[in-house]
Amino acid sequence: MSLLVVGSVAYDSVSTSHGSREEALGGSATYFSVASSYFSEVNLVAVVGEDFRHTDRNTLLGHGIRLDGLETAKGKTFRWKGLYDTENVNNRETLDTQLNVFETFSPKLTDNQIKSDYLFLANIAPDLQLKVLEQMNTRPKLIALDTMNFWIDDHRSRLTDVIKEVDILFMDQDEIRSFTKVSNIFTAAKKVRELGPRIVVVKKGEHGVLVINEGDIFAAPAFPIVDVIDPTGAGDSFAGGFMGYIANSNNTSPESIRRATIVGTVMGSFAVQGFSIEKIQSLNNDEIDERFRGMVGITSFSALANEESLINFSVKQN
Amino acid sequence: MSLLVVGSVAYDSVSTSHGSREEALGGSATYFSVASSYFSEVNLVAVVGEDFRHTDRNTLLGHGIRLDGLETAKGKTFRWKGLYDTENVNNRETLDTQLNVFETFSPKLTDNQIKSDYLFLANIAPDLQLKVLEQMNTRPKLIALDTMNFWIDDHRSRLTDVIKEVDILFMDQDEIRSFTKVSNIFTAAKKVRELGPRIVVVKKGEHGVLVINEGDIFAAPAFPIVDVIDPTGAGDSFAGGFMGYIANSNNTSPESIRRATIVGTVMGSFAVQGFSIEKIQSLNNDEIDERFRGMVGITSFSALANEESLINFSVKQN
Repeated sequence: MSLLVVGSVAYDSVSTSHGSREEALGGSATYFSVASSYFSEVNLVAVVGEDFRHTDRNTLLGHGIRLDGLETAKGKTFRWKGLYDTENVNNRETLDTQLNVFETFSPKLTDNQIKSDYLFLANIAPDLQLKVLEQMNTRPKLIALDTMNFWIDDHRSRLTDVIKEVDILFMDQDEIRSFTKVSNIFTAAKKVRELGPRIVVVKKGEHGVLVINEGDIFAAPAFPIVDVIDPTGAGDSFAGGFMGYIANSNNTSPESIRRATIVGTVMGSFAVQGFSIEKIQSLNNDEIDERFRGMVGITSFSALANEESLINFSVKQN
Repeated sequence: MSLLVVGSVAYDSVSTSHGSREEALGGSATYFSVASSYFSEVNLVAVVGEDFRHTDRNTLLGHGIRLDGLETAKGKTFRWKGLYDTENVNNRETLDTQLNVFETFSPKLTDNQIKSDYLFLANIAPDLQLKVLEQMNTRPKLIALDTMNFWIDDHRSRLTDVIKEVDILFMDQDEIRSFTKVSNIFTAAKKVRELGPRIVVVKKGEHGVLVINEGDIFAAPAFPIVDVIDPTGAGDSFAGGFMGYIANSNNTSPESIRRATIVGTVMGSFAVQGFSIEKIQSLNNDEIDERFRGMVGITSFSALANEESLINFSVKQN
């Protein structure tokens, strides 16, 4: 089934304890597209500047990513510069953000794109997310949204307008607390679900993911990674694996959402093993399957058979 | 199989966003014993003062906990006073600690106790943990240890002496980082394992538990609890469920350790649903089994069959 993503394509300059990259290919839609491309055809809607490198375009095309919606505008490609704490990779500081061509971007979908079955609104201005939503011809089977603290803090009202329209909200645990002003994750997720989304995916980085899907709660740990090279794009790659799997299976049952969560976890774990898309651009199917099986390995335990009890000991009073 | 615990029995005064309790029954060995009592007979070694209430003694006896090793000394029972942040229950402040009878306590094990099959050194001074270890007649089948930041900061060398002797180390994620001075959990666990323990159980509170058991990694989420009444004793109750299950099954295989981890998770989740031992003292077997089944429910997903691949899509270059 067709999968459409709108988000950012960017040049990122990133420094972590493992080194640094200058103006490497990044952006929410880039990570999403590359991760989802293993599972599904994906249509990318974004804008780049005249400085966008042919090699980067070819990398995306090489993954079968449809670039009909990748507009080239006068000016420079979006730039982001970030520094990760060398002691705790979970802490990062944004040193610079240059919107450049995104300042005036207004996405225009093709006749083909407006009929997409699955839509992912990657982290980008809520106004742009809304503009994409409004152009959809029929409502996609599933609309998912990702966002970040910047939009929560400064564009809450517009962001809320988009959230009301989607089926799945991806947020990290600090973001959902900040958005709902509720500290308990389950209470916070309930508040989000009252707005519209029926599924809330709470991303917790090294602690994994919590999926609240109506009455169904699913908790998945992160895949254990000893050397986190660069966390940038982990959440977008998670979403790419998740939505790519759903689009390909064309199944949104709770069981399919659980598997999608594990696929997302797998893709997110690959993403942090390299700068930019260095690791996720060159995976083979076996590696992905093997890590999925690894997730079974680290999470499984023997269940209780019917009628079986854990307790075959009776408390004897002294 | 016989299970022995040495740790504290205390009167705790605790305040959380859900209320407060003054001088309620607490202490690491208390929570451990009550939680493990559902699965195994447990021998408790600790000291209380002359002010120790008969009703509290009867509560422990009512759970079949053997109190031959609960010494009554001149003076007052250990007191702890803590305040939990009303916004974030993960943050707590110790307002007061009075060692009282623990200042001069020197555990003396009975002939029966020194032959115990399973030993848990609950959070207490490393010197006391060592004194218990030294008295064991033959080495228990499994020795586990819990500790806290106070001993890591101020008694590191003695604590390290004990850690060298045990099979399983329970630590929370901040403690293991502080003890090893390594921020990556897996690298930190490796460093601990080089000291002696073959199994490291990293407790992450609301994010669950990570068990590093030689080559076997197991990750379990926390059981979802919306209303955390009082987190005091969650880790000790976790350890109680864990060790109680192991002692009863008399099986230390990786698969048994995994199940023990889930049983611990279940008991820890009950502990936080009440002040003191209010919730864990009155469970029935069905509730425990049901929550164990609930853990299967929130963690399971459909595995990949042999030969099956997640990917039935091939990347088409444009």
